[in-house]
Amino acid sequence: MINEITQFTPPNRILMGPGPSDVHPRVLQAMARPTVGHLDPSFVGLMDEIKELLRYVFQTENQLTLPVSAPGSAGMETCFVNLIEPGDTVVVCQNGVFGGRMKENVERCGGTAVMVEDEWGHAIDLNKVEDALKANPGTKALAFVHAETSTGVLSDARTLCEMAQKHGALSIVDAVTSLGGSPVMVDEWGADAVYSGTQKCLSCAPGISPVTFSSRATDVIQARKTPVQSWFLDLSLVMNYWTDGAGAPRSYHHTAPVNALYGLHESLLMIREEGIENSWTRHRRNSDALRAGFRAMGLDPLVSEDIHLPQLTTLKVPEGVDKPKSRKILLDNYDLEVGGGLGGLAGKVWRIGLMGQSSTPAHVILCLSAMEGTLKEMGIDIVEGAAVPAAQAILFGGDGSGGSSQKAA
Amino acid sequence: MINEITQFTPPNRILMGPGPSDVHPRVLQAMARPTVGHLDPSFVGLMDEIKELLRYVFQTENQLTLPVSAPGSAGMETCFVNLIEPGDTVVVCQNGVFGGRMKENVERCGGTAVMVEDEWGHAIDLNKVEDALKANPGTKALAFVHAETSTGVLSDARTLCEMAQKHGALSIVDAVTSLGGSPVMVDEWGADAVYSGTQKCLSCAPGISPVTFSSRATDVIQARKTPVQSWFLDLSLVMNYWTDGAGAPRSYHHTAPVNALYGLHESLLMIREEGIENSWTRHRRNSDALRAGFRAMGLDPLVSEDIHLPQLTTLKVPEGVDKPKSRKILLDNYDLEVGGGLGGLAGKVWRIGLMGQSSTPAHVILCLSAMEGTLKEMGIDIVEGAAVPAAQAILFGGDGSGGSSQKAA
Repeated sequence: MINEITQFTPPNRILMGPGPSDVHPRVLQAMARPTVGHLDPSFVGLMDEIKELLRYVFQTENQLTLPVSAPGSAGMETCFVNLIEPGDTVVVCQNGVFGGRMKENVERCGGTAVMVEDEWGHAIDLNKVEDALKANPGTKALAFVHAETSTGVLSDARTLCEMAQKHGALSIVDAVTSLGGSPVMVDEWGADAVYSGTQKCLSCAPGISPVTFSSRATDVIQARKTPVQSWFLDLSLVMNYWTDGAGAPRSYHHTAPVNALYGLHESLLMIREEGIENSWTRHRRNSDALRAGFRAMGLDPLVSEDIHLPQLTTLKVPEGVDKPKSRKILLDNYDLEVGGGLGGLAGKVWRIGLMGQSSTPAHVILCLSAMEGTLKEMGIDIVEGAAVPAAQAILFGGDGSGGSSQKAA
Repeated sequence: MINEITQFTPPNRILMGPGPSDVHPRVLQAMARPTVGHLDPSFVGLMDEIKELLRYVFQTENQLTLPVSAPGSAGMETCFVNLIEPGDTVVVCQNGVFGGRMKENVERCGGTAVMVEDEWGHAIDLNKVEDALKANPGTKALAFVHAETSTGVLSDARTLCEMAQKHGALSIVDAVTSLGGSPVMVDEWGADAVYSGTQKCLSCAPGISPVTFSSRATDVIQARKTPVQSWFLDLSLVMNYWTDGAGAPRSYHHTAPVNALYGLHESLLMIREEGIENSWTRHRRNSDALRAGFRAMGLDPLVSEDIHLPQLTTLKVPEGVDKPKSRKILLDNYDLEVGGGLGGLAGKVWRIGLMGQSSTPAHVILCLSAMEGTLKEMGIDIVEGAAVPAAQAILFGGDGSGGSSQKAA
């Protein structure tokens, strides 16, 4: 077999699943710039700029803000292994797949996870969280997912962070899918540890996980009684590598993924050029248009209007649809990737992302047209010809601007 | 500051430090191919090809062979957290920086590290290892570094693996710097867990860590009594994501670093085109030429001929040289990166890599000329004009081939 392997030519997909999202040619080209040494003076400057740009997207002044050299699940693990020690209690909210992963993390740190469970497709119930914090005095942290990628639900991160603080607990926030697409206000919320991924609304290639820690969280890390169980993710070591250089000199920890960081720098630059608030608005408007289009077609989003994610819509699969076949038609006929359901929602929903560079009017219109064509091809009864006009009314209606203000920068 | 950040244009360096090495334009361009979803049918095929190509460079049939989605130090951690449980004893050889990191890993797994220490710049003493294994019956694993990047020493991996097997211990082998540049014969040696990095002799961008596990090691992982302390690196989960698809269906674990894997695939393809044995020969010949050149100049390699690494030469810094200044001149005048000493060798040696695409006659000649010029500029007494001819005699002398056989494919 080995002699038959040839150069890989990926298909040119339109990525509207749960991530990765479309990566802009600027970012792709950035990753192809010549590799320099990870201690090169030019690279050290790049590291400082990346931290500064991450502080902007996280809306924080946190000193300890950096990109972990591994995917989002390693960012999650970074938060838990550095903050949680054996014997600690963590209140973990679960309203989808990723809360379950947090539980795994707590237990592998030797902690106890007190689970607050909500039905998939619903937001985290603040009263239940308050009760759990009251019932477990001395809780070390409250952990929750801001934007549940498995269900398409946004929870009230601000209130949850305030609640944690009130009860003397740290807050650990999964912002993998929210960062860049919805307001993530780390300092305003008083969030203590927040992690994200590059392949969602930052529209960079997958593989890197931005994290930020409050000074309160940093103090907790520095006061640990036991060593962090992971050498690779031990922030007391990592932070000396990503230091600002004002204090102690930068010390070698691991070799940074140089070219992946070129890409992250470029994608963050694009968000700064657009303006983070404009990015939030763009995600909201395109999502509203997509959902209006689906409704006009006779399809139902799973999540109610008040709590749905602007970057990911879970759409109920109508009766009689062979779901794997529908995704295959979308991929084969339109090069369009959408996601399937995970866990309890497997087979029941499509997950349609409008993230980062994939959140444009063109993506909305293409997706509605492709879905309409696919369902017709499968003999499913839908309202024909109504979806695109419904979306256009939201995208372009009224101001006559042609929608130019929503386009990605 | 944030508004002053502009697109990053890296300098075009010649990378002759301890890694990363020069990345070929084919690999850089591969990373810029359009991102596809990590569950895209085309990507699933790519994953299978990468595993097949990794088996070739590792010279193994091991089923459990895959690229960890993080740098080499995470590859190291993958081996330890999956194989070592609390209470286990591991004999760890230390003859440089990376043996010390292995000790850290063992202890963070709750194991006991029995250290076998050798002087930096010397190979691992086989007798001392044998004594340690005899003195510690029931030792779970013997861990050692094949090619010590901090000192430039190659140890006898074959004998060490056999010794481990004889004593009923697993072998854990650091092949970060050796893989692709020196023979790494996983099956022939009977090595149980081997990890590497992409940024050395594979000449890919940093950020990914190829690993391979014997069936014996896989059995040990499956028979664990305690969960792996890292969720991200838990091979019982990761292997279901990287499955060959013949058995259970591929199940989601994390989002693979899609574009980084495009690059790895391309770099592995280049090694297959060259032929792995040709790559080993090339590394050896270029290294011999470099060392001959330095000797002719009057400089001394730290490591004796029988155990020196073909991919990295540690060169003693002559009396009177301001070492940081010498590296600055090499960088500023020649765009040439060489490494400094680590740990006990800090300030005492340069570390000069000839790895992967950086192992060519052109790199040898440039490095010798640049070093000669730099030392002259610093007023250091050296033999002038002798280095390049000495290297040329080894590179091109005799067969009149013009050295074409040593060139990178």
